[in-house]
Amino acid sequence: MGSRGAAADGRVVWAIDLGGTNTKVGLVAADGRIVARGVLATRHERGGDAWCDEVVSALREAAGRCGVSEDAVEAMGVGAPGPLNAKEGVLTNPMPNLPGWQGYPICAALRARTGKPVFLDNDANCAGLAEHWAGAGRGVSDLIVLTLGTGIGSGVVAGGRLLHGAGGNAGELGHISINFRGPRCACGSRGCIELYACSSAVTSRYRRKLRKAGRPLTGSAAITAEGVFAAAEAGDEAAQETYREVGERLGMAIASMVHAFNPEMVVLAGGMAGAAKLLLGPVRRVVRERTYPEHHTGLRIEASELGEMAGLLGAARLALVAGQEGAAG
Amino acid sequence: MGSRGAAADGRVVWAIDLGGTNTKVGLVAADGRIVARGVLATRHERGGDAWCDEVVSALREAAGRCGVSEDAVEAMGVGAPGPLNAKEGVLTNPMPNLPGWQGYPICAALRARTGKPVFLDNDANCAGLAEHWAGAGRGVSDLIVLTLGTGIGSGVVAGGRLLHGAGGNAGELGHISINFRGPRCACGSRGCIELYACSSAVTSRYRRKLRKAGRPLTGSAAITAEGVFAAAEAGDEAAQETYREVGERLGMAIASMVHAFNPEMVVLAGGMAGAAKLLLGPVRRVVRERTYPEHHTGLRIEASELGEMAGLLGAARLALVAGQEGAAG
Repeated sequence: MGSRGAAADGRVVWAIDLGGTNTKVGLVAADGRIVARGVLATRHERGGDAWCDEVVSALREAAGRCGVSEDAVEAMGVGAPGPLNAKEGVLTNPMPNLPGWQGYPICAALRARTGKPVFLDNDANCAGLAEHWAGAGRGVSDLIVLTLGTGIGSGVVAGGRLLHGAGGNAGELGHISINFRGPRCACGSRGCIELYACSSAVTSRYRRKLRKAGRPLTGSAAITAEGVFAAAEAGDEAAQETYREVGERLGMAIASMVHAFNPEMVVLAGGMAGAAKLLLGPVRRVVRERTYPEHHTGLRIEASELGEMAGLLGAARLALVAGQEGAAG
Repeated sequence: MGSRGAAADGRVVWAIDLGGTNTKVGLVAADGRIVARGVLATRHERGGDAWCDEVVSALREAAGRCGVSEDAVEAMGVGAPGPLNAKEGVLTNPMPNLPGWQGYPICAALRARTGKPVFLDNDANCAGLAEHWAGAGRGVSDLIVLTLGTGIGSGVVAGGRLLHGAGGNAGELGHISINFRGPRCACGSRGCIELYACSSAVTSRYRRKLRKAGRPLTGSAAITAEGVFAAAEAGDEAAQETYREVGERLGMAIASMVHAFNPEMVVLAGGMAGAAKLLLGPVRRVVRERTYPEHHTGLRIEASELGEMAGLLGAARLALVAGQEGAAG
């Protein structure tokens, strides 16, 4: 592959998906093709600068491996855990994923090492960008992407543009409450949907059912959301009921979101999207029951098509769009 | 006033604020000045065409009175009860305000009578536009305007633009649920904030308190939200408690909205905004308690400055902006 042959228009960017455990890095072409990629252990305890050094050499190595000269790389995009300050390129409070990284100026640090413009957004917004660009939401101008995992994040595309809000923290849809007298949440509210539909909500709901039924909790400390999914697939009724109830709660929150944003599509993404098969039925039923016909007619609720590559692709898209708009961060 | 002297740049539009009882009409300059205005009884029972005839002659009369030639009027803007199809200029289902007007092609009917381009949006979106243009939210690019009255409507400005969603029905924030097991709503959901914080919620909550306290319900059928406000102002503790509780419920829904949109400002508008004095305290307290610091730091929650003129001004703004963008509906 020639140094200018990476994409039809020759544009390539470096993309980084920074997670608490692993960091994905890649070289991505303007048509959405991942030209090269790799995964590093994040090892956050050594701090941001050491991480930057390692990431930059992995990115250089990836470009070299594909015969792309460093000069041809236009920009860098980074997806990271929020909250963060995208405009200033700083991780403000990436807890609990990256303890000790509060206030780390990630964009400046990467720019100093590469000379490239660097663009930052939170990982859920990157997932939203990716689904809009190259996933289930291609061509959809009003789109909600929910990332279901240890928490619930989201990226909202409204009128074809990612919604940021006044401080860059719009789309915290995990903190839509469905019950103002419900359990207390870290955000200060009660009954946030994150508490009813994250992965630990699946396991604790399942454990309660086992206990109630007098079934043994053998190894229950190790029960995971994936394990409950596997049990449901194998015919375990308590596990099936667990996912149905979680899907119904999620549907109730999505009904509020649908009244707020009137999207054309809602995409279930993130680690728990693998259970979409069990979640989509109850989610769709409850959303249909709990919204006006003007809001649910034509609304599609689907599972992500991009899987674990969504964050990396979204980070790339961030850099490609910003480059096109001429806004260098 | 000369025919071209209505505004600095000479641009004037006709504006219409169609309500179930009254219709406000006006001639508005590009700087937000209402050059002339009037009010007609809507009398919806005679149908849309008769209403159009009367409105158009009132608008012509207003222009003539100010010495503005009809040719100088650039366009018309209409705010009307939703749901409606703004793109096609049709009132789809304006119930219960305008029974019998379902499907009425209001834009085509007005255009046929005047030859002007006509722009339509729902009344809450018009209130949002007006507050953004000339009210409490001047210069604020991320803004939520809630119209509190017999129902709760809203207009959401995100990144400086009114949010419409896929079908033009975004911003139905009255149907953010705060309680998934709460009372049934017309939208199909349960526990929508509209049920806890509209004017009839104020009166029924107050009546329950009177009954519980063994106080006489004399004339209670005629109790209005304004009456409860007056009682609260006069020192009636049950009335004060009523507004405090309604404000707290409203704050709980606004906390969800703030996580979703991360606005810089929330404006309480509509008929009940007169009680903002009693509502703002509990609303602000609950929103501060129930959102992340990133979301509530710097957030302003204020009462509308425009009062009953918001709808008319927003309709004018609709026509002025559309005219500038060259998009004629």
